[in-house]
Amino acid sequence: MSQTTNKRKTYIVNPSYQYGLTARIGLFAIVGMIISVFLCFLITQNTLSLLILKYNLSIEDPSSVFIFNNLPITVSYLVLMALLLIILVLLTIRHTHSIAGPMIPLERAVHEMRKGNLDIHVRLRSKDYAHSLADALNALASEQSELIEGLRENIAKIKTKVETMGDKSEGPRNDLEDIKRKVASIEKQLMFFETAKKQV
Amino acid sequence: MSQTTNKRKTYIVNPSYQYGLTARIGLFAIVGMIISVFLCFLITQNTLSLLILKYNLSIEDPSSVFIFNNLPITVSYLVLMALLLIILVLLTIRHTHSIAGPMIPLERAVHEMRKGNLDIHVRLRSKDYAHSLADALNALASEQSELIEGLRENIAKIKTKVETMGDKSEGPRNDLEDIKRKVASIEKQLMFFETAKKQV
Repeated sequence: MSQTTNKRKTYIVNPSYQYGLTARIGLFAIVGMIISVFLCFLITQNTLSLLILKYNLSIEDPSSVFIFNNLPITVSYLVLMALLLIILVLLTIRHTHSIAGPMIPLERAVHEMRKGNLDIHVRLRSKDYAHSLADALNALASEQSELIEGLRENIAKIKTKVETMGDKSEGPRNDLEDIKRKVASIEKQLMFFETAKKQV
Repeated sequence: MSQTTNKRKTYIVNPSYQYGLTARIGLFAIVGMIISVFLCFLITQNTLSLLILKYNLSIEDPSSVFIFNNLPITVSYLVLMALLLIILVLLTIRHTHSIAGPMIPLERAVHEMRKGNLDIHVRLRSKDYAHSLADALNALASEQSELIEGLRENIAKIKTKVETMGDKSEGPRNDLEDIKRKVASIEKQLMFFETAKKQV
């Protein structure tokens, strides 16, 4: 049995999809962060204004109120935001991996089946998506394999019958009837495809 | 041809997967928002302390410094955060839909093939993922359909030959040779599966 298992050593298995989604999610997070900073700025300004009104304060240099005039705070903020962004990007890549990952063994399995190898078995990682599709594909391959095996056996029987018929010339009547039965049996097996097609 | 197209009218096609991922992403966003509020609070406190030190200010009621003591600001903040969260949840559901969605027609196609209907064609939405898997599956079905058609034609020829052989009893020698050739041809077709299996 060809082990169509999942030997994914890298986390990037489908770059265009994985980088595309990561870029979109990263952009969304950056926009969220900018909105958050803007809100923080607005609220700070608002609170300070309220305090100034409430306590009759006065500030000589109003620009010093802007929180980002304080370099250490700005740097710590940017470092923390960068860390959060990196975590988000890593989580996104893991997420896209669990989506793009299962496509590799599934496509490999279908490719094997196209080459005529029905002896496949897709094994996904427990955390992978698309388990039910993998199960259905495994079942399809296994059922088709059995069907082909049945056909092959019938053909083998016809062949043996025809060969012995050629050797001895006595009683070809019964042999012919037997061949007819075998052919009818094969037709019945192939009718499986025909009837299923018409049911749809 | 059975049109295995994608008639997805709802956006929830796989609840356990879609709600699970949406819940995880929502949780991540809420944690991010809490961190953001906490940072905003810290920075505000820090800026205010710096200002108070710098200008030798004094505040009678220190609790009034807390930004969330201002109800209108708190409510607007919460409403905005809720809106952002709703947008995020809707985007996540659309994202999970584009992942879970294609599994429906793909599984339906494999199910049809398991019933013996090789006349399928999976058509995914242009934005859907898993296009290459769908293409491979369509190709597999079409190729297997041709193979089965070939087998069926060969069997039909054998059947005709055997029937005419039964009717007239003259010259069965040539007829037998002909049957043998047909059987060999079928064996060759079935060997397709056997040889592919051994190449792996």
